[in-house]
Amino acid sequence: MNAADCETWMRVELDAVEAALQSWLPAAAPAGLGEAMRYGVLDGGKRLRPLLVLAACEAAAGNRSAALRASVAVELIHAYSLIHDDMPCMDDDVLRRGKPTVHVKFGEAQAMLAGDAMQALAFEVLTPAAADPDSIPARLQARLCGLLARAAGHGGMAGGQAIDLASVGLPLNEAQLRDMHRRKTGALLEASVLMGAACGEMPGSAWDALSRYGAAIGLAFQVVDDILDVTQASEVLGKTAGKDLDLNKPTYVSVLGIEGARRQAQTLRERAQAALASSGLRHTARLSWLADLVVDRNC
Amino acid sequence: MNAADCETWMRVELDAVEAALQSWLPAAAPAGLGEAMRYGVLDGGKRLRPLLVLAACEAAAGNRSAALRASVAVELIHAYSLIHDDMPCMDDDVLRRGKPTVHVKFGEAQAMLAGDAMQALAFEVLTPAAADPDSIPARLQARLCGLLARAAGHGGMAGGQAIDLASVGLPLNEAQLRDMHRRKTGALLEASVLMGAACGEMPGSAWDALSRYGAAIGLAFQVVDDILDVTQASEVLGKTAGKDLDLNKPTYVSVLGIEGARRQAQTLRERAQAALASSGLRHTARLSWLADLVVDRNC
Repeated sequence: MNAADCETWMRVELDAVEAALQSWLPAAAPAGLGEAMRYGVLDGGKRLRPLLVLAACEAAAGNRSAALRASVAVELIHAYSLIHDDMPCMDDDVLRRGKPTVHVKFGEAQAMLAGDAMQALAFEVLTPAAADPDSIPARLQARLCGLLARAAGHGGMAGGQAIDLASVGLPLNEAQLRDMHRRKTGALLEASVLMGAACGEMPGSAWDALSRYGAAIGLAFQVVDDILDVTQASEVLGKTAGKDLDLNKPTYVSVLGIEGARRQAQTLRERAQAALASSGLRHTARLSWLADLVVDRNC
Repeated sequence: MNAADCETWMRVELDAVEAALQSWLPAAAPAGLGEAMRYGVLDGGKRLRPLLVLAACEAAAGNRSAALRASVAVELIHAYSLIHDDMPCMDDDVLRRGKPTVHVKFGEAQAMLAGDAMQALAFEVLTPAAADPDSIPARLQARLCGLLARAAGHGGMAGGQAIDLASVGLPLNEAQLRDMHRRKTGALLEASVLMGAACGEMPGSAWDALSRYGAAIGLAFQVVDDILDVTQASEVLGKTAGKDLDLNKPTYVSVLGIEGARRQAQTLRERAQAALASSGLRHTARLSWLADLVVDRNC
């Protein structure tokens, strides 16, 4: 499968994810809440996590309907974390995905509630009633809820953000930085891969290989983010560039230098590709292409 | 079963719930997050929602281990909502359960993260791995996650809070006030009853009766809350009294007057008891006693 095929696949899948997000986000939640939720999720974002879910589901020859629900759920968790992270008590950012952040547009209280409601909605999407024509097996619902909850919670994303908060101005070493990002961004990226994999069946060794793949690209994503934060302008990123430096936050660039960070990204790409090669799975071309996309992206 | 038996039952169950909360709240989540989560949940609260779960499970002759998990999960959702609700951008309150609120003690960012992590933890608790000796059937895990997510999200608690925010200073009528509270507090109280019921098996008619019971006590709880807000001192309530009046929020007392609100609470108690009587279930004495407790409480 060549790069053009993968790009076509991506465009088709991005349309499917966007349509699914559109249909599951409430059109009329009370008192402006639905509007804030839709603003915080739609019309923006690279949708990397949904693509990872769908590519991993394909590698596992899994249940497509379940994977589409899982892709919406992980994107809702990701988008809620950005809304809360941008608030004045956290990173205090005014620009996200090229637009004013949710609290700038709707106020802090509505932004907090929109994030809270989006986390709940993620678990709603994963638990369709059996009578729903588009339902998925209860065993899979439970599995997906469990993977997502653990990635989002104190042992994953929220825990990583707590470390991030506490680390401002501290001289973290590389191991501490890795631990923070393994939780803050890595856990949800890895969970995206595993939720897609859970939609099908595979030997434990293949599962473990996908877990290693997910961990490697999770970290690679953050290393590249840190590089882009100092090399790209805000207009290209759609968010405020140079923010970590301004906030005196430790980054891969501040710890390893720009060249060291670039080498690290390449090493992680190779680790991700090696994990796929060792998985014994046949249909990993899209996961492989996504690993390259994560490292080679410029925004 | 007399009131003394019910009080003994309650004391025993409160100990069980407290022990379960203790064991599921992380002792060592990173960077102070675990401490903030534990502070926000432990050593306080009436634990009404867990008691409703456990009493409904008993009425359904249900799976005790599942009900204990469900009781922890609903209390985590309730406690997280209080933490976020108390923050400066929402109700800006400094006193809760007789202690400084979480953001006063740990800062706003940590309070927001603690709430976020508690919502995720609720779904972790509901989805133990099959290998866990204390696990519960996957079908029940999925059911409980679905009930909780819908009660917590935009159609339930978070939606009700959005209406609450938007209603400050507005002259809501009784129907609008009821709609707000049906979502804001009622949805999670009703879900507590239904999650307990889901731990066992019962005919659809009994399920519907418990749903009516839950809706009635959900509303009764709020009516009584509004009465206590104007008749009790902060020291008795463990939170700031007279707050709604200060914030110019519509309440049952402002809409119905104090006597009208008292009559309304009695009507709802009768409706709850009638629903239990019509359920056809035999073991509803504790649910009946809890309905009285909700209406007769003085804090």
